[in-house]
Amino acid sequence: VHESNLSSEAIELGPYAHFMQKEIFEQPSAVANTLEMILNAKSISPNLFGNKAEEVFSRTSNVLILACGTSYHAGLVARHWLESVAGIPCNVEIASEYRYRNPLADQATLVVGISQSGETADTLAAISYAKKLGHQYSLAICNVPESALIRQADLCFLTHAGPEIGVASTKAFTTQLATLLLLAMVLAKMRHKLSTKDERQMIMALRHLPVALQHTLQIESQVKIWAKSFAQKRHALFLGRGVHYPIAMEGALKLKEISYIHAEAYAAGELKHGPLALVDNEMPVVAIAPNDQLIGKLKSNLQEVHARGGELYVFADADSQIMQSKNLHVIRLSEHAGILSPILHTIPLQLLAYHVALVKGTDVDKPRNLAKAVTVE
Amino acid sequence: VHESNLSSEAIELGPYAHFMQKEIFEQPSAVANTLEMILNAKSISPNLFGNKAEEVFSRTSNVLILACGTSYHAGLVARHWLESVAGIPCNVEIASEYRYRNPLADQATLVVGISQSGETADTLAAISYAKKLGHQYSLAICNVPESALIRQADLCFLTHAGPEIGVASTKAFTTQLATLLLLAMVLAKMRHKLSTKDERQMIMALRHLPVALQHTLQIESQVKIWAKSFAQKRHALFLGRGVHYPIAMEGALKLKEISYIHAEAYAAGELKHGPLALVDNEMPVVAIAPNDQLIGKLKSNLQEVHARGGELYVFADADSQIMQSKNLHVIRLSEHAGILSPILHTIPLQLLAYHVALVKGTDVDKPRNLAKAVTVE
Repeated sequence: VHESNLSSEAIELGPYAHFMQKEIFEQPSAVANTLEMILNAKSISPNLFGNKAEEVFSRTSNVLILACGTSYHAGLVARHWLESVAGIPCNVEIASEYRYRNPLADQATLVVGISQSGETADTLAAISYAKKLGHQYSLAICNVPESALIRQADLCFLTHAGPEIGVASTKAFTTQLATLLLLAMVLAKMRHKLSTKDERQMIMALRHLPVALQHTLQIESQVKIWAKSFAQKRHALFLGRGVHYPIAMEGALKLKEISYIHAEAYAAGELKHGPLALVDNEMPVVAIAPNDQLIGKLKSNLQEVHARGGELYVFADADSQIMQSKNLHVIRLSEHAGILSPILHTIPLQLLAYHVALVKGTDVDKPRNLAKAVTVE
Repeated sequence: VHESNLSSEAIELGPYAHFMQKEIFEQPSAVANTLEMILNAKSISPNLFGNKAEEVFSRTSNVLILACGTSYHAGLVARHWLESVAGIPCNVEIASEYRYRNPLADQATLVVGISQSGETADTLAAISYAKKLGHQYSLAICNVPESALIRQADLCFLTHAGPEIGVASTKAFTTQLATLLLLAMVLAKMRHKLSTKDERQMIMALRHLPVALQHTLQIESQVKIWAKSFAQKRHALFLGRGVHYPIAMEGALKLKEISYIHAEAYAAGELKHGPLALVDNEMPVVAIAPNDQLIGKLKSNLQEVHARGGELYVFADADSQIMQSKNLHVIRLSEHAGILSPILHTIPLQLLAYHVALVKGTDVDKPRNLAKAVTVE
């Protein structure tokens, strides 16, 4: 039985060396499947989140996202979208922290639980706790139908990423992000914050997202080259600002999980408040440098690192205008993707973690000490 | 002139080797000075925060704390206190992130800026931004009278820590915490969440705090012994849960700042979602183990680390019942200090960072790349 499993797995792997690599490359189709219902539509409807969604959303004046690990990072990105697109205040909490605090509850707050498996013990318990405290409605964003999270929640959205085998989550994350952007759009529309024109433009952008992801995946060969020198390192800092800070967190987590390199993310503005002391030629710094309104600030943060002998690995947009120089390596993505930028900037960080792990020879799909779904506390 | 400065500094150092050590040991008196106004009182009054405080606090239904670095960690601790003691929802944001987001504002939210110097550029700009967005009132918690932060805010509380010379903040942090606990008590009282009996008990506990700090400082010799083996490490994880998670963050930041060891804090419940992959015999884990309602959960987190060959350095309360064993080192503080516990658990982490830096021979008071006050973006 064991052997036959293996061989069926091998067939499923197709041309890929690991499930993680396969799942990274499945992201264009995973996102397309997740967005299927809207890709041919001219407008979006609350019904995407279930029959009761319109009623629930009409009573929603705040959002509270509860999640762990990678799903928590998706929530942190969503916070920016919910606030900037829908004008709705949002908090995001680590489920294992939330459930043991004394938080205040309010009926107008929609509780959103995010979990790939839908079986994450802390997330399930945190949502029950939120309900007990007085929060009225919950929405599950999940990749597994019939999971405990789906059964527990009032509303649900199923990401159609397909089975995720690699322990380090990849396509679950980007499909969660696509879903959370939809949620921001739906809430914006119901709150009259989204003009018909903006709605159409965002739907167009989402329609283009799978192609944009496919295009971004083509940087793999460049990332492979970086991976060789990166694999010699024992530490790394990952810098981002704004909506890309949680992407830096996710990139650092991927590297930790499968390459066992101690990577830590920082909001770039916090560098001077401590972590800059760590920077020397042993401590590479990975930066996410989209050409958004923060690019000027980010460049001066990078300058500080560079001036102190730090080696920079920058994932920039094509129009970010950051030039390669000694100790400053740049890989360019396409031009700035606007609101979709955090989704696209996830790809190079997944590829970096994957190829560094390959060089190091770790067990990519089953990293030490970790389980795929954390079903116990 | 230069020489005379040096000699005056040397005199000021007294029996201490560095300003940081002096400032760590000044904490009992710094906290006593900060709390002076209430130490002889039977009750607390909003006037502690300025003449207009009673009026402002009566309109306050939410708190938003904006800060950077160590002050940000103080804010994260305060969030727990404000919610559990005063039943008031609180958000805490990194100032450099907040000022470039699109956050929602509301007149009933009190904006609290925390900064030792009162000149932190991002914190000042974040508070101005909050005002511009529509937040009505601000409170400054600051160690320097006449600073920009004090001048800018509607209300203020001056921590009386005295001049802090060491770049790594120590006594500013604990006096900020004492102040923030006072704020939680005042708001609780005004919202009828604090009985006269509880108020008296908390004042009694605060009155005892300087002595409790003094007592905690006596563990220095034990920490010194740990520092020798710890200084050989290149990484560390710091674990805490609940109100002690930001204390773990602060402990990790101290170690980063002055010993250049890459220390990172995690909410212990998040271990299984990734960082556990990093744990091996090269990656020591420092844990804050107060005997609170989370101690059982924390112990199982520590068990996971231990089972995977991680070396644990645990700062436990006397009644936490964690026994020393192979690869599990324990230093015991006094019995659980209740709401004051995070203040007391700060001390061993400061001492650890200091003594590790001494062993490593770094410039403790002026760590590389860092400035005392971050007065530019």
